Amino acid sequence: MKLTKEQSKEIKDLQSQVNKTKRVTSPDLEKVLYEAIPVLDHGFIRVIDYMGNDNSIVQAARVSYGKGTKKVSTDSGLIKYLMRHWHSTPFEMCEIKYHVKLPIFIARQWIRHRTANVNEYSARYSILDKEFYLPKNEHLAAQSLSNRQGRGEVLKGEQAEKVLKILKGDAERTYENYESMLNEKYDGSRINENQAGLARELARMNLTLNTYTQWYWKTDLLNLMNFLRLRADHHAQYEIRAYADVMLDTLKKWVPTTYDAFMDYRVGGTEVSSKGKIVLQKLINGEKTSIEDSGLSKREWNELMESFGLKEYIVD
Amino acid sequence: MKLTKEQSKEIKDLQSQVNKTKRVTSPDLEKVLYEAIPVLDHGFIRVIDYMGNDNSIVQAARVSYGKGTKKVSTDSGLIKYLMRHWHSTPFEMCEIKYHVKLPIFIARQWIRHRTANVNEYSARYSILDKEFYLPKNEHLAAQSLSNRQGRGEVLKGEQAEKVLKILKGDAERTYENYESMLNEKYDGSRINENQAGLARELARMNLTLNTYTQWYWKTDLLNLMNFLRLRADHHAQYEIRAYADVMLDTLKKWVPTTYDAFMDYRVGGTEVSSKGKIVLQKLINGEKTSIEDSGLSKREWNELMESFGLKEYIVD
Amino acid sequence: MKLTKEQSKEIKDLQSQVNKTKRVTSPDLEKVLYEAIPVLDHGFIRVIDYMGNDNSIVQAARVSYGKGTKKVSTDSGLIKYLMRHWHSTPFEMCEIKYHVKLPIFIARQWIRHRTANVNEYSARYSILDKEFYLPKNEHLAAQSLSNRQGRGEVLKGEQAEKVLKILKGDAERTYENYESMLNEKYDGSRINENQAGLARELARMNLTLNTYTQWYWKTDLLNLMNFLRLRADHHAQYEIRAYADVMLDTLKKWVPTTYDAFMDYRVGGTEVSSKGKIVLQKLINGEKTSIEDSGLSKREWNELMESFGLKEYIVD
Amino acid sequence: MKLTKEQSKEIKDLQSQVNKTKRVTSPDLEKVLYEAIPVLDHGFIRVIDYMGNDNSIVQAARVSYGKGTKKVSTDSGLIKYLMRHWHSTPFEMCEIKYHVKLPIFIARQWIRHRTANVNEYSARYSILDKEFYLPKNEHLAAQSLSNRQGRGEVLKGEQAEKVLKILKGDAERTYENYESMLNEKYDGSRINENQAGLARELARMNLTLNTYTQWYWKTDLLNLMNFLRLRADHHAQYEIRAYADVMLDTLKKWVPTTYDAFMDYRVGGTEVSSKGKIVLQKLINGEKTSIEDSGLSKREWNELMESFGLKEYIVD
Repeated sequence: MKLTKEQSKEIKDLQSQVNKTKRVTSPDLEKVLYEAIPVLDHGFIRVIDYMGNDNSIVQAARVSYGKGTKKVSTDSGLIKYLMRHWHSTPFEMCEIKYHVKLPIFIARQWIRHRTANVNEYSARYSILDKEFYLPKNEHLAAQSLSNRQGRGEVLKGEQAEKVLKILKGDAERTYENYESMLNEKYDGSRINENQAGLARELARMNLTLNTYTQWYWKTDLLNLMNFLRLRADHHAQYEIRAYADVMLDTLKKWVPTTYDAFMDYRVGGTEVSSKGKIVLQKLINGEKTSIEDSGLSKREWNELMESFGLKEYIVD
Repeated sequence: MKLTKEQSKEIKDLQSQVNKTKRVTSPDLEKVLYEAIPVLDHGFIRVIDYMGNDNSIVQAARVSYGKGTKKVSTDSGLIKYLMRHWHSTPFEMCEIKYHVKLPIFIARQWIRHRTANVNEYSARYSILDKEFYLPKNEHLAAQSLSNRQGRGEVLKGEQAEKVLKILKGDAERTYENYESMLNEKYDGSRINENQAGLARELARMNLTLNTYTQWYWKTDLLNLMNFLRLRADHHAQYEIRAYADVMLDTLKKWVPTTYDAFMDYRVGGTEVSSKGKIVLQKLINGEKTSIEDSGLSKREWNELMESFGLKEYIVD
Repeated sequence: MKLTKEQSKEIKDLQSQVNKTKRVTSPDLEKVLYEAIPVLDHGFIRVIDYMGNDNSIVQAARVSYGKGTKKVSTDSGLIKYLMRHWHSTPFEMCEIKYHVKLPIFIARQWIRHRTANVNEYSARYSILDKEFYLPKNEHLAAQSLSNRQGRGEVLKGEQAEKVLKILKGDAERTYENYESMLNEKYDGSRINENQAGLARELARMNLTLNTYTQWYWKTDLLNLMNFLRLRADHHAQYEIRAYADVMLDTLKKWVPTTYDAFMDYRVGGTEVSSKGKIVLQKLINGEKTSIEDSGLSKREWNELMESFGLKEYIVD
Repeated sequence: MKLTKEQSKEIKDLQSQVNKTKRVTSPDLEKVLYEAIPVLDHGFIRVIDYMGNDNSIVQAARVSYGKGTKKVSTDSGLIKYLMRHWHSTPFEMCEIKYHVKLPIFIARQWIRHRTANVNEYSARYSILDKEFYLPKNEHLAAQSLSNRQGRGEVLKGEQAEKVLKILKGDAERTYENYESMLNEKYDGSRINENQAGLARELARMNLTLNTYTQWYWKTDLLNLMNFLRLRADHHAQYEIRAYADVMLDTLKKWVPTTYDAFMDYRVGGTEVSSKGKIVLQKLINGEKTSIEDSGLSKREWNELMESFGLKEYIVD
């Protein structure tokens, strides 16, 4: 990711402001405010604004439960309690706004999370930058043979080179043709002064899905955690996980107590079905159990054993 | 509205904090932050937190439209443009959180606006305060005879006194019976040490709908304006309008440019149907027109004339 | 619950219609369509309309996954897979609409689920029925002493009688005063011909929270299950659970395969935190473990043991 | 749009079913249920399911307003009233589900309407069809010079040919390279048996934005009208308008009374700001007025005059 001089200056200016406020603040998050944290080859994430901190969650919960909550001795205990019992509304009381630069095919995955506010750069209105995502060699994974939605081994040698060459070549050619149809260069200069250009809203259709776009994305803490739970997971596509990992770090800086509870109960936790509960219960009580008795499919049985680190029970 | 000593001290403490932030601020709103602004006899509205200001809307719009928007000369011009053309997403980039104390029957009207986050005081968990709304004499309106959803003349003399006596008497009696069933006073002291009390989640059903509750209510600027457009309108019930009017004032302090555009295009503006447009067009062109020609119902015709201040065209 | 003759006739008429459609249907749900299923003393639930069935979920999933899903052998296997892996969007493709009559204090709890569409009877516009909820003796529970949000033993003898007398007496008196202030009886007849009545939007504030209201409530299958998961749970207040139980039954008639998966993975399932996973793993492997080692609080430890039926590990 | 034999047969089968239901139906919509209505060169819209009809809106409104609404003489009068006064909840009681095939760059515009449920074909999981949008000659518009978000004259002759050649050439080449990287043809056959293919979730990034995707899209009637109001408008991009126009037609078949009110009050209607109202009022009263007096910008003044067909007042 390279910022233009103009962008770097703007960020520096924003960061140098010192405003006074009576609102609660999150000092660790303030330190990285506006910073363009690099993701992938040309992308970034910037925290632009936020509202509330761990204390706001506690405060909201205490409004809900009234005098009763005074008995819970610590704020951290209360936040853990809320997380464990899936209380949702106190976490909705905090809000965060990101500026994200990301490839279009990742933007399409991201936007499926609907409970957020979005302002995306409009290619109807302006010309897109000449920037597209090219995976690093170690991310050029083959299609998994066992899992239709997964990656297998990394491609190597000639095949890898060929793939990269295709991606680079096609992105460059389609972008050049985009400019040619627009009759305009990215910097706004006309190519052929004597003719019109194709409408931007049409020309954009020639770009490939690894072209970068950008948006402001604003959501509340509850929905941010729902997003991160899915997208920082190892089942998520590497490219969106790269963004989620950076966001996890901003979550930690913003609401450290909530972050800890989130990692324990959500990210590191697991669900067990009613049938699965009986299997675990029998194992603990030293009773005999098997896939056949359990009513679980083989796949389900293995997922259960794996999530509890019980490798010796996994069957082929 | 009387605050307890404890509450007054808490507000003073919150207001005396001076935190440093790199976030944008809204200086006029900061001045009233945490303040309990009185509404009705025991209610209040407090702004607890906010995110963004007029500048955030401009910034979001400029991300969407890219280099193109540089041509719009002023921020205020851009905000007016966005409002006029019903652009919604830039206004979603700002967020505000209120603490509201309000009668339950008003809370039930308010909650119909679903795109907001709410933490309400739980009467399952804690005992409600002994506070209920009693209208002032000038708000004791009779049922309108022409409009099923409206108010007519103000009740007077004996009838007004009788109504107030009923409201006060019933609220007090049902609250005392609430305590009696709970076997507990509001301050937590037991009434009869030798017996249990009815569960709070049940006892609350005996309270009248003018009992006060409270909540944290958080929404984005777009949805706040949707709320205010309906609830600060003269068709809205007086009691919710009293809250909306105070919130309008906080809107002005928070985002003054947006406030102006909102008042011009939304609050002071009107819609005209395709048939209504033809009527106005004919009037401007000095052509003849009448209800019969127009295809409008009498009610619709009169609503149109009234909204354009054309009283001489109103028909009986 | 007593229906008026008029209502009974209307329901009978609706049920006797036989329309032809090319849409998918749910034969078992059709059988109870429009039926007023009684809940509590005066409440009911009616299924008014629905869209989709189990097959619609499968169909939507197959659009998402394309040719790949053909390998999943059965529809029921696919639905179980979707439920287990928290796939949400296919379940959003079905929709259901209920007509519900319920006490106001339960309506206030219910409405906290925001992702639904609601049309409630307006007491600004019309007069509410003289019907209020009075619990049966066996539901007159005392406040739990250990759990602030729960019920303890059932009240008995004189105390129970006293509570019921209060609830009945206060509801009747406040309703009569409601009519008196309105200067109108429920049937629309004027009480005193020579004077106006208080506006309906004001008079309603005198009613107690056990007064019945009614609404149309429409939601998609995913959000219905979210609602039922919380409200058919034994932690839910009995009065809302009574509605949720009836709705669970309509869920079974509507989408039987989804119902089975829901009961197994959601209702009967449980979550385990990352710390809890280690505890269970140690127990299965026969290793020593204790609250102290586990990092769990006593409360958390006991909740874990209870949810796996491991009573011998529960500590005081 | 060409359907495969398989698809045509499936549609015919679905259309030939005759199910009995007690639900309300919409006979005209039933006639086109499941039909693939062509849009653009390879796209289509199919109505897959629906819930409710005009009558459901009336029914919901009558629940809200109780006995009062009996006075409104006709259903059509009630629906017009609801539309005119922006009552939203009764329109939310109807739901519709579409199957849409559309180019990705249009899907990205469409998805900005968030209050809908979506199941999109997953290119992580399956291979996309070799189909991409190529505009007809008459839609190859130049960029508007006056309006950054608009289209100007149609490109002609050589320039048009060149654009079409680019679009076709780039789409074909990038698709072939997509297959090559996947090491797989669309029909599932391996290209080179001795090597793996790039993961689908990666290979898709090489496709251009005019590639077709498809989804199930489900929304309620209120949000459908919000969508159509924006997307069937002449400011909308032609390609999405082509879809909106077909959907307008399904709206008419589904809820004909609502359709009429929608066309009159929303599509054909306009908003007037408070300043604009004064201008029109003066014109009607024969008073002098001008841009300068009005407080309107030139742009705003002209928009106002244009929307009322007052061309003689438009200024340069």
